Amino acid sequence: MKNLIIASTSTIHGSDYLEYLLDELSVFFKLVDYILFIPYARPSGISHDDYTNKVQEAFLKINKTVKGIHEFENPVEAVTQAKAIFIGGGNTFVLLNQLYKNQLIEPLKKAVQNGTPYLGTSAGSNICGLTINTTNDMPIIYPPSFKALGLVPFNINPHYLDPIPNNKHMGETRETRIKEFHEFNTQPVIGLREGSWLIVKDDSIILKGRLSARIFEYNKTPFEVETETELNTLK
Amino acid sequence: MKNLIIASTSTIHGSDYLEYLLDELSVFFKLVDYILFIPYARPSGISHDDYTNKVQEAFLKINKTVKGIHEFENPVEAVTQAKAIFIGGGNTFVLLNQLYKNQLIEPLKKAVQNGTPYLGTSAGSNICGLTINTTNDMPIIYPPSFKALGLVPFNINPHYLDPIPNNKHMGETRETRIKEFHEFNTQPVIGLREGSWLIVKDDSIILKGRLSARIFEYNKTPFEVETETELNTLK
Repeated sequence: MKNLIIASTSTIHGSDYLEYLLDELSVFFKLVDYILFIPYARPSGISHDDYTNKVQEAFLKINKTVKGIHEFENPVEAVTQAKAIFIGGGNTFVLLNQLYKNQLIEPLKKAVQNGTPYLGTSAGSNICGLTINTTNDMPIIYPPSFKALGLVPFNINPHYLDPIPNNKHMGETRETRIKEFHEFNTQPVIGLREGSWLIVKDDSIILKGRLSARIFEYNKTPFEVETETELNTLK
Repeated sequence: MKNLIIASTSTIHGSDYLEYLLDELSVFFKLVDYILFIPYARPSGISHDDYTNKVQEAFLKINKTVKGIHEFENPVEAVTQAKAIFIGGGNTFVLLNQLYKNQLIEPLKKAVQNGTPYLGTSAGSNICGLTINTTNDMPIIYPPSFKALGLVPFNINPHYLDPIPNNKHMGETRETRIKEFHEFNTQPVIGLREGSWLIVKDDSIILKGRLSARIFEYNKTPFEVETETELNTLK
C-alpha cells in the first residue's frame, strides 16, 4: 500500500520552489488538506520555521496547509497521525541524524508502508533508499548509521550529473563515485537527473519527468532507462 | 617537530601524477631513500598493489623507492619504523575506515609529531585536518568516526571549487556546503584549490602554489589568503 513521489530536486533552474511538480502534487495529495512537513535537512542552515514557511508558500498554490514537525510536542505522534508527509532537501546527514535522534525511522517506515502519501525531494528522496551511501552532500554531521528508510530496494543518487566534457577539475565524476560505491556495496543505484522523479505505488516504481535516468548495478555497465519505465525489477 | 606537505591534489590538469610537486618533493624527501605508501583510499577502486605501482613510477623520477603498507605483516610497525610517509587520494571514508580498522590513527599521529616527513594529497590531506566533515567524497563506507589525525588545528577542503557562474544545476556550491558545516561545527576550514599545498613545519603553516586559498571561519565572511601566507594563527 505504498504511495510515494521520490523527486531528484525540489526546484528546477529558472522556476519557483516545487513549481514543476505542482500539477502532479495536486493529484497526489488530492485527498488531504494538510501535510506534515519535516524540515530537518535545513538547506543552507535555514531554521525549521523559515523552511516550513517557504514550503507553506508553495503548497498554498494548490490549497494545502503545511505544518512543521518541530511544532509538535511529540514528533513520533506527528508522524503516526499524519495524513501526508513531505521531507524536503538540504543536507542528508543532518536530516538522517535528526530522524535517528527523534526515533522517527521506524514510525516513518510504518506510516509509508501503511499507505500515508510521502513526498521526498533531494535529501528527502535519498533517505528513501537503502542507505545514504550515495548522497552528494558534505558529511557535516556524523549520524549513528548510514542506514535509511529502505522504502525502495536500491539506493538513490539525486541531482545526478553527467560528466562535464573537457572539465579541468580533477575531482571524481559522479559515475566514478558510484563505481567506487560498488567496490564496497552491491545494491543498485539510480541516478535521478534534476526534473525526474519516481512514482512508487504498491509494487510498481515508475520513472517520471522528461529525462532518462542512469542505472548502476553491481558488476554491470551502467545504462539509461527512459521515462515511464517500470523499475520494479531493480533490486 | 612536524614536517608535512598537505596538497589539494596529486595531479593537476594536463600533467602526470605528482609531476607538479616533484621538485618540491625531491627537497622534502632529500634525507630518505624509501617512502612508506598508504594506498587505502583506492581511487576508482584500484587495488593496493596497482596504486602502489603507480606511485612508485612517479617517485622513480626523483630516485625514491616506495613500499605499500599492505606488503607489511604488521601495519602499525610499518608506520612506527617508516622514515617517510605518503598517503594518496581516493575516497576519504574508505581511507579513514581502514586506518581505524588497522589501528593506525595514533601511530600515524605520533610518527608525524615526532618528525617523520608526511606527504598527503587529496584524501590523504583531508585526514590531516581535525575531522573529515568537509570532504567532497561520497560516503561509500561508514567509518567508526569522522575524527581525523588533527595534525593541523582546522579542517581541510581539498579540490576547492569556486561557484560556477550561470550554473543551471541546483546542487549546492562548495561555499554553501561549508557554510552548512558551520551551522554545526566551529573550527575553521581552508579551501585548497588544485595546485595549492600547505607546508607545515613545527608551528608554521605556509600556503604554497600559484593560487590563493579561501578561508572559512565560524560566523565570519569567507576571505582569500595569498600564496606564501603564514597560517599558524588559524585555529
